[in-house]
Amino acid sequence: MEPSWESSVTDSINAIYLLFSAYLVFVMQLGFAMLCAGSVRAKNAMNIMLTNVVDAVVGSLSYFLFGFAFAFGEGPNKNPFIGTSHFALKDIPTSSYDYSFFLYQWAFAIAVAGITSGSIAERTQFSAYLIFSFFLSGFVYPIAAHWVWSSSGWLSPSSGSLLFGSGAIDFAGSGVVHLVGGVAGLWGSIIEGPRVGRFDAFVVLGTFLLWFGWFGFNPGSFNKILVPYPNTTDQGNWTAVGRTAVTTTLAGSTAGIVTLFGRRLLVGHWDALDVCNGVLGGFVAITSGCSVVEPWAAIVCGFFAACVLIGLNILALKLKVDDPLEAAQLHGGCGAWGLIFTGLFAKEEFVIQTYDSGRIGVTRSYGLLLGGGWGLIGAQVVELLVLLGWVSVTMGPLFYLLHWLRILRISTDEEVAGLDISSHGGYAYNAHEEESGPRFYGEYMRMQNNS
Amino acid sequence: MEPSWESSVTDSINAIYLLFSAYLVFVMQLGFAMLCAGSVRAKNAMNIMLTNVVDAVVGSLSYFLFGFAFAFGEGPNKNPFIGTSHFALKDIPTSSYDYSFFLYQWAFAIAVAGITSGSIAERTQFSAYLIFSFFLSGFVYPIAAHWVWSSSGWLSPSSGSLLFGSGAIDFAGSGVVHLVGGVAGLWGSIIEGPRVGRFDAFVVLGTFLLWFGWFGFNPGSFNKILVPYPNTTDQGNWTAVGRTAVTTTLAGSTAGIVTLFGRRLLVGHWDALDVCNGVLGGFVAITSGCSVVEPWAAIVCGFFAACVLIGLNILALKLKVDDPLEAAQLHGGCGAWGLIFTGLFAKEEFVIQTYDSGRIGVTRSYGLLLGGGWGLIGAQVVELLVLLGWVSVTMGPLFYLLHWLRILRISTDEEVAGLDISSHGGYAYNAHEEESGPRFYGEYMRMQNNS
Amino acid sequence: MEPSWESSVTDSINAIYLLFSAYLVFVMQLGFAMLCAGSVRAKNAMNIMLTNVVDAVVGSLSYFLFGFAFAFGEGPNKNPFIGTSHFALKDIPTSSYDYSFFLYQWAFAIAVAGITSGSIAERTQFSAYLIFSFFLSGFVYPIAAHWVWSSSGWLSPSSGSLLFGSGAIDFAGSGVVHLVGGVAGLWGSIIEGPRVGRFDAFVVLGTFLLWFGWFGFNPGSFNKILVPYPNTTDQGNWTAVGRTAVTTTLAGSTAGIVTLFGRRLLVGHWDALDVCNGVLGGFVAITSGCSVVEPWAAIVCGFFAACVLIGLNILALKLKVDDPLEAAQLHGGCGAWGLIFTGLFAKEEFVIQTYDSGRIGVTRSYGLLLGGGWGLIGAQVVELLVLLGWVSVTMGPLFYLLHWLRILRISTDEEVAGLDISSHGGYAYNAHEEESGPRFYGEYMRMQNNS
Repeated sequence: MEPSWESSVTDSINAIYLLFSAYLVFVMQLGFAMLCAGSVRAKNAMNIMLTNVVDAVVGSLSYFLFGFAFAFGEGPNKNPFIGTSHFALKDIPTSSYDYSFFLYQWAFAIAVAGITSGSIAERTQFSAYLIFSFFLSGFVYPIAAHWVWSSSGWLSPSSGSLLFGSGAIDFAGSGVVHLVGGVAGLWGSIIEGPRVGRFDAFVVLGTFLLWFGWFGFNPGSFNKILVPYPNTTDQGNWTAVGRTAVTTTLAGSTAGIVTLFGRRLLVGHWDALDVCNGVLGGFVAITSGCSVVEPWAAIVCGFFAACVLIGLNILALKLKVDDPLEAAQLHGGCGAWGLIFTGLFAKEEFVIQTYDSGRIGVTRSYGLLLGGGWGLIGAQVVELLVLLGWVSVTMGPLFYLLHWLRILRISTDEEVAGLDISSHGGYAYNAHEEESGPRFYGEYMRMQNNS
Repeated sequence: MEPSWESSVTDSINAIYLLFSAYLVFVMQLGFAMLCAGSVRAKNAMNIMLTNVVDAVVGSLSYFLFGFAFAFGEGPNKNPFIGTSHFALKDIPTSSYDYSFFLYQWAFAIAVAGITSGSIAERTQFSAYLIFSFFLSGFVYPIAAHWVWSSSGWLSPSSGSLLFGSGAIDFAGSGVVHLVGGVAGLWGSIIEGPRVGRFDAFVVLGTFLLWFGWFGFNPGSFNKILVPYPNTTDQGNWTAVGRTAVTTTLAGSTAGIVTLFGRRLLVGHWDALDVCNGVLGGFVAITSGCSVVEPWAAIVCGFFAACVLIGLNILALKLKVDDPLEAAQLHGGCGAWGLIFTGLFAKEEFVIQTYDSGRIGVTRSYGLLLGGGWGLIGAQVVELLVLLGWVSVTMGPLFYLLHWLRILRISTDEEVAGLDISSHGGYAYNAHEEESGPRFYGEYMRMQNNS
Repeated sequence: MEPSWESSVTDSINAIYLLFSAYLVFVMQLGFAMLCAGSVRAKNAMNIMLTNVVDAVVGSLSYFLFGFAFAFGEGPNKNPFIGTSHFALKDIPTSSYDYSFFLYQWAFAIAVAGITSGSIAERTQFSAYLIFSFFLSGFVYPIAAHWVWSSSGWLSPSSGSLLFGSGAIDFAGSGVVHLVGGVAGLWGSIIEGPRVGRFDAFVVLGTFLLWFGWFGFNPGSFNKILVPYPNTTDQGNWTAVGRTAVTTTLAGSTAGIVTLFGRRLLVGHWDALDVCNGVLGGFVAITSGCSVVEPWAAIVCGFFAACVLIGLNILALKLKVDDPLEAAQLHGGCGAWGLIFTGLFAKEEFVIQTYDSGRIGVTRSYGLLLGGGWGLIGAQVVELLVLLGWVSVTMGPLFYLLHWLRILRISTDEEVAGLDISSHGGYAYNAHEEESGPRFYGEYMRMQNNS
């Protein structure tokens, strides 16, 4: 027997939607690479861009072999803490999971490692990076994803037994993705010294590419677009998907403008990097509640995301924590705010659309400020605290182990010379070089000295 | 009651098509940013790329609050000159407008500001930019869009009472988008002095990204893909969408080649920027008629677009108007040609497909050279003249007001030093910088001097 | 009469899938441009990026006028060696070919020229490039495509009379695209001398863009997504499309990691370019069998692709063939391995899904190592040998003719000065220039000499 006409149409439409969303999420790797290249000292740009390629390739194998299984592998004994089947895509496709779902989740996994890359840039040995990246994509992140996004996860809003009768709402992962990536980065950034020099043009490029990719990340997280809502005449996931793209855009734009003006007041001049970081902070914050809030609430979300970002950057300066990409402040801080924001502003109708396909007669906990009670905000706080703890007890010891094995940090000599020269045999930006020599600048200097 | 199976399928397919087209149009911001970075003096590259981010974030709020309402807000009293409802997305979604439609139109609005960015680069105060950008995205452009694209617009080809029994055909906006953006830029470029030096590599990158984005801009303007044509057995918008991508590609390619050879004859050497500008000029020109002309006509369109571009560049040189991105010539000049071209070459069958879903028994004005009479070409000329006037009476006074308030132009000192240093604390391309500064090469030089 | 509801839905879904896949394949031009800019001497970066724009514009016209007809134009007398109808899109759309199919194939044609661009970089006259590019996109490549991909092609796996009862499986073109492009490039690279200096950052950017584009290239080659498999309850092309994206990702990732470690052992330090080239080599190799192998086999494919790449690079070094982008090794060598790999590892079930829509009762030759006999591997070897021969007897004489006419290679003076200055009036990376002069480097040097 062959699939029915209806199921063929449904599966085709949903596969197109999910696959092209996955491709957009993949573009975020490109965005991270540009953002990194624009945010670190020129001498290390090549090294950090390389780590982004490595995220993708190591993460592909790690997530294929273990990560997907830990995150979504629900065997006969459903385990709320860790998945236990589908290692190396065994038995895929099933009626629940097709290859396109794996690909979409893979793009998320490598994005987490991309976030952390920025924080540990410019001092990490290459071999340490391979190990850390494998561990984060294949174990730490998938477990967190299982708790919140798997139907058997203990924090999930769609499991049988909901935490506080609600479950946590972290639709596209302010917590699961950004907080996890940001906190992992925090442990690295603490031991990083101050740096100088950047290739700023790439930051703008990176910001736009991440914006583009976020259209896959947030609206794509519905996974299916052909889902009608029974209490309407012409709405379904196709409506919610568009609304999610709008809330994402508004939160990012608001945070960008507020950060721009806020920092203008604080430091006395306009700075492009402020608006770029603000936009990204707004996106990180709205990622948790993008599908369940009204457009006006997204503006509120962006406003406070900017405040969180500005405040944490002042704090980081005071504490002399130098995180090359502000990953801890941006993904950690704004990610945490995003979880709380959802607990405050989630609208019941949209929660039911998102997690119960708009089923009639369902009631759910929703935003505290909209009268939805303490269930949801409680679950959000639990997710926040648990993710902070989980990443700290896994990534902290790993970094310590690598440190103890003396394969974490590069030597001081290498650090002064720049990673690009010592490990990769050349700068990223060898824009002008001479015929006779391997690299322009050295040659040019020699020429000048001789004349 | 829930949406029927047929309407769910239709809405899902159309939403996927429109949303992913919107994402492609958004990529044009990235293209404009690269094109700008590659076309202005290096010292200002960061500034102009920043204005592209600001376009996006200011335009998001401005278009959300007012712009969309002015463009498409048709209240009970349909007004042919300005929309009057749906401010801040109030009452969206309706049966006519879903969120995805808003997102698609938002991407257009920020593209208009992106076009104008290039022309006013390198001399504009940042605060002036914020005001100008808000006004253009939120008022000037939406009004023009209302006239041509809203069903109650007085120039619309699908309203109840068609101008000259025809209405103007400006399918994806040679006039509404490019002419408006270009003319707005013209007012700025008139007072700009000559410049030197560019980061050309980014121009190529920008051209390709705009090409990619145009696949969203032109074919995406159908908004719906699941629309069968009653006079065929297997055609519908899905056919016209593909044809539109083909005409777009052929017009751009032809214009690129003709500009390359034309300028080779004029200046005596090959120049990559010629082929890039030619490609973009061809795209601008075909944007009006892309859906209603045969592929062979697209080649004609591209040929003359190149002639217009080359001619206007010679004229601009003679008049000493220095527009950093040639926005006035490219978007204004080729946009104007595009409107005329459509009036000459539109094919009746395709006009009926595009504006009447191929309904049987409909007759329409079409291209003058194909025997379609004077109705369409008349309406096209009216659109051209009216848009020229509208932008001039709105943007001209605004620029004068900003000038009068002394917040338009930066000081001569700042202009000489470069905007990046004075306003943003650093160059965009700090790949190679000087001794005395805070950036890497300074460090490197000092190291060399010490050794 | 109008198209039925079922055919409208089917055509819409398939058109969205094919068009957006075409747009992704188009992004590969951007990837090639970046890869080129990052891989050649800075003085030639502008020139080689320009050739990528020219590929696109010349290829558009060439493929529109002749190429598509030679590849897919099946007149009443079906010719297994060359297509004979649909010149300049005459009679398109037909029931078999819609505009979207043309656009998808056009994106392939310009990609072939993009591959060859790299190999003949830095020494080729611009006019020679125009001729070569027109010939390759409009004739050499389309003929090869006809043999393997047209339903009347003599090597096709879906024609009436299958070669060796099997036909060759080259799903997305390890042979037709990459081997053809690579071998064409080989003839150029043989006469190229050694070079120095690169703008490496663009290589990373280019690799990610190509990865993104490959999601269009490989999964997109199904052309239709709404095709149910009769022997299943819920599978169809939508499943195979996702699996194809997964095999592509795994092959590239594996090859990237193996190349990284392999070269680390050989040369003693980590190099970002190794992982980038490895990833691309893995993609090239899996392109032939991506739709017909299991994910585990894709890992095998990537492993040996890396070995082929490393081995051929050692050989090229010994033979002093300097191909700026390693196009011959990467696209030629890994493309050849990909054809063989498919003959060894193709799974019967997937071959039937791909080429017979999963029809029940069909049997096909499949991978030798899986027990599928000698038919398929034989056809694969024939395709490999025939493509080697075809490209050599067409492109070899063409290059010789251009050489004989003295319009192939630039003068030694020009080559020393760099193509960007002599032909294009400036470097690609004029990142920092002075107020007083047209181009930074010349000015700066003069300033230094005067002081």
